[in-house]
Amino acid sequence: MIDQISIFGTGLLGTSAGLALHATGYKGSIIGWNRSAEQGQLALAMGAIDSIASDPIEAARSADVTVLAVPIYATVDFMEKLASVLGPEQLVTDVGSTKRLITETASRLYNTPDRAAFLPGHPMAGKERGGAALADANLFRGAMWLFTPDPAAQLSPRGTELVKEWRALVAAMGARTLDLDPVRHDELVAWVSHLPQFTATALSALLEEEVGGAPELKDVGGRALREMTRLGASPYSMWRDIAHTNTEPIERALLALEQRLAHLRESLRTPALRNEFEQANKFRRE
Amino acid sequence: MIDQISIFGTGLLGTSAGLALHATGYKGSIIGWNRSAEQGQLALAMGAIDSIASDPIEAARSADVTVLAVPIYATVDFMEKLASVLGPEQLVTDVGSTKRLITETASRLYNTPDRAAFLPGHPMAGKERGGAALADANLFRGAMWLFTPDPAAQLSPRGTELVKEWRALVAAMGARTLDLDPVRHDELVAWVSHLPQFTATALSALLEEEVGGAPELKDVGGRALREMTRLGASPYSMWRDIAHTNTEPIERALLALEQRLAHLRESLRTPALRNEFEQANKFRRE
Repeated sequence: MIDQISIFGTGLLGTSAGLALHATGYKGSIIGWNRSAEQGQLALAMGAIDSIASDPIEAARSADVTVLAVPIYATVDFMEKLASVLGPEQLVTDVGSTKRLITETASRLYNTPDRAAFLPGHPMAGKERGGAALADANLFRGAMWLFTPDPAAQLSPRGTELVKEWRALVAAMGARTLDLDPVRHDELVAWVSHLPQFTATALSALLEEEVGGAPELKDVGGRALREMTRLGASPYSMWRDIAHTNTEPIERALLALEQRLAHLRESLRTPALRNEFEQANKFRRE
Repeated sequence: MIDQISIFGTGLLGTSAGLALHATGYKGSIIGWNRSAEQGQLALAMGAIDSIASDPIEAARSADVTVLAVPIYATVDFMEKLASVLGPEQLVTDVGSTKRLITETASRLYNTPDRAAFLPGHPMAGKERGGAALADANLFRGAMWLFTPDPAAQLSPRGTELVKEWRALVAAMGARTLDLDPVRHDELVAWVSHLPQFTATALSALLEEEVGGAPELKDVGGRALREMTRLGASPYSMWRDIAHTNTEPIERALLALEQRLAHLRESLRTPALRNEFEQANKFRRE
């Protein structure tokens, strides 16, 4: 039975996970830690966590499960720090957006019978802005929560049990789970998550240059414009580690979109434009 | 006083206009015509129009105001047919998405003291799919309704009065109006409307090729992916005339986005990525 969970990082995902765990009827305690004390206090006030850890390493040491909900490089740093202080009775998991680096680190430092277990995870849920204030107990409802376990992992019996229990808690939070190879994961999210984000960023940056000076002209675009640029509000701090740890797949996806846009541009007055629309329509067919 | 309005085209915009006009308390009659009888019957059943015209030209002849809510080339065709049968006691207006061709046609065939008045209009409202079934009396609420009148127009006194009344009805439907030069209009909508649409089309077509075969992988993308590809459902039939009548501004906008994406792609691991995010953030700052 999982009795104590520590959550590192009480931003949008960490705080939402705390709220969602409590909403599942989880009866154990949740201890939270955040680099900025203010976000931790907010998560506590919202009822996402039951107490605040002064020392994250100590909090992890006493927890059955530690959830790393910090940026990717910070996740890897914590993985290194925790590997030597945790044991085979404990599980660490994460919510990072790229999985190759984290899964490689897990295979190097965790997942042997005498070490802690590590289950690399990635809930496909978020908002264009982060922070505890936007957290929502239903954030994961209906969302996919991806896992990229190493098939060569040799977990302790307790580690195996904790992984099973954590998967059950994720399902109880309303998410659907899917296991993927980490390299395949990173290629896939480059297409369905990172490409949409970087497209919205490029489109928003371009439009700021073209019509940003005239606020009434932004209104002209209406819902379509608002939707296509909503992710333009996403901060660099949320995306830098993703760009650094999934560079090649994102480069391939961006280049493919550049080529597709050029093809469409050259087809504006030709029958090929119909093919592009029909191909796009297929993607949206229910 | 406007007593009779004819609406040509009872698709999404025409049917929504009929519903919205009735909702304003407009007491006159609305006669509708649609190329396909089924959409006309649906608009009638929804209460958007009071009767169906068997002959559109006859319907326009008896109306104070005729609203052309058909694709752009069909609008121009009707403008040519109606110019010789209508007189200075009548107003024609439209809802077309590009305004240069239509405004030029209006200056050639309308807007002298002995001819009907023509007010080129463009409500910035719509959905990714057309049709009467999706019509909504509140579609124009809060939206911009652009006009591109020719400053050299010499309207009859009655024409001037009808333009004023039609503008008041548009405001009563909840839209905010803005007058623009037609060339400036077409350049502006290339950026804030056509570029977002063609970007969504290209992105959706590309993703159909990359992940379309595996429906579970579409779910992985979540809200961000759904939003960035919603307009991918827009049909070619709605966009062909736009691509044909605003080709050069759309080409310029697409080329600029291709270049911006290439710059972002080359910046994934450099400090320039921060600049792109910060520029994009500015566009979304309230």
